[in-house]
Amino acid sequence: MALADLVARTRTVRRFREEVPLAPDLLEQLVDLARLGGSARNAQSLCYLIVTEPSLRAALFPLLAWAGYLPDWPGPAAGERPAAYIVCVLDRERQRGPESEAHFDLGISTQNLLLGAAERGVMGCRIGAFNADRVRALLQLDARYQPMLVVALGEPAETVVVETVRTDGDVRYWRDADGVHHVPKRPLGDILLAPPRP
Amino acid sequence: MALADLVARTRTVRRFREEVPLAPDLLEQLVDLARLGGSARNAQSLCYLIVTEPSLRAALFPLLAWAGYLPDWPGPAAGERPAAYIVCVLDRERQRGPESEAHFDLGISTQNLLLGAAERGVMGCRIGAFNADRVRALLQLDARYQPMLVVALGEPAETVVVETVRTDGDVRYWRDADGVHHVPKRPLGDILLAPPRP
Repeated sequence: MALADLVARTRTVRRFREEVPLAPDLLEQLVDLARLGGSARNAQSLCYLIVTEPSLRAALFPLLAWAGYLPDWPGPAAGERPAAYIVCVLDRERQRGPESEAHFDLGISTQNLLLGAAERGVMGCRIGAFNADRVRALLQLDARYQPMLVVALGEPAETVVVETVRTDGDVRYWRDADGVHHVPKRPLGDILLAPPRP
Repeated sequence: MALADLVARTRTVRRFREEVPLAPDLLEQLVDLARLGGSARNAQSLCYLIVTEPSLRAALFPLLAWAGYLPDWPGPAAGERPAAYIVCVLDRERQRGPESEAHFDLGISTQNLLLGAAERGVMGCRIGAFNADRVRALLQLDARYQPMLVVALGEPAETVVVETVRTDGDVRYWRDADGVHHVPKRPLGDILLAPPRP
């Protein structure tokens, strides 16, 4: 698949076919894609935990905040929850620069991961809103590991469409009466600035 | 091309065939790939400037710091400099969360961009070490725009190989006597943590 098609297909999904498991091999391959992205100072300070075991998934789920722009929606119902999570943690002993570089690396690595997932029909959602101490305790992680991001994964059980931001500039995603999730994107002309003329 | 092959091929390159221009259409397509990545809060607060004009490239080049781990190398010589730059700036008026979210978005968007470039045989280098005020002044940008990252692009004029980090854990990239650039990567087993047993 051409990358442009894959990028277009790689959309954030928050409702899944929970009953469809994701193979351990697939999940490791996705972490391997994350591994091979660039890294500031080549520090490679991110580590990953694959969470598929049902009781651990059930314990992780209530620690996560879903979809800030859908205040009336508490997150996916039972049966529509993620089939797996990949928890991304910063290893403080490997960190070589400011924490902003870890955020930067996280964007790179999880984009590789989510593109790889979408290539196989698996979609995901990056979740950054959680109490890191509670996630660390649940996963029995040493203090050197700082949970940064949780990637929820599964076969999609919702339709997501990209549309152009309206003239009022409202970027909030929304869900229509049929449950279709709409994501307003700024058009190219709106993010491309002209360099000065010589 | 399967994504795994494209990810493996997408390596940071710092020496280019400067005489080979990059088509404006291609560069706009790369920004469009950056545009279509996910964004924290869907804020889409990043904007992009494409810099190809020779005098502007010449003025931008000395503002950038190259390859922190190669202290004896001042950056690419004339003839090996980038054929184009894409300067990524944060639009403060569109920012909706902490600046760390912009770093995060930058990782996502530039990964799309660099994968798309590699698909066409064009390689690049993310550069975060520069004086943002001087870049803003050169590009005649309003104060609302904060230069965050410069992506240098061109046809590669060097070979980059990925190898496994040695047991001493040294992650510094290095260049051998033949000018081949070596990038030590941590193996999968070194970044994959085991979740607790139920």
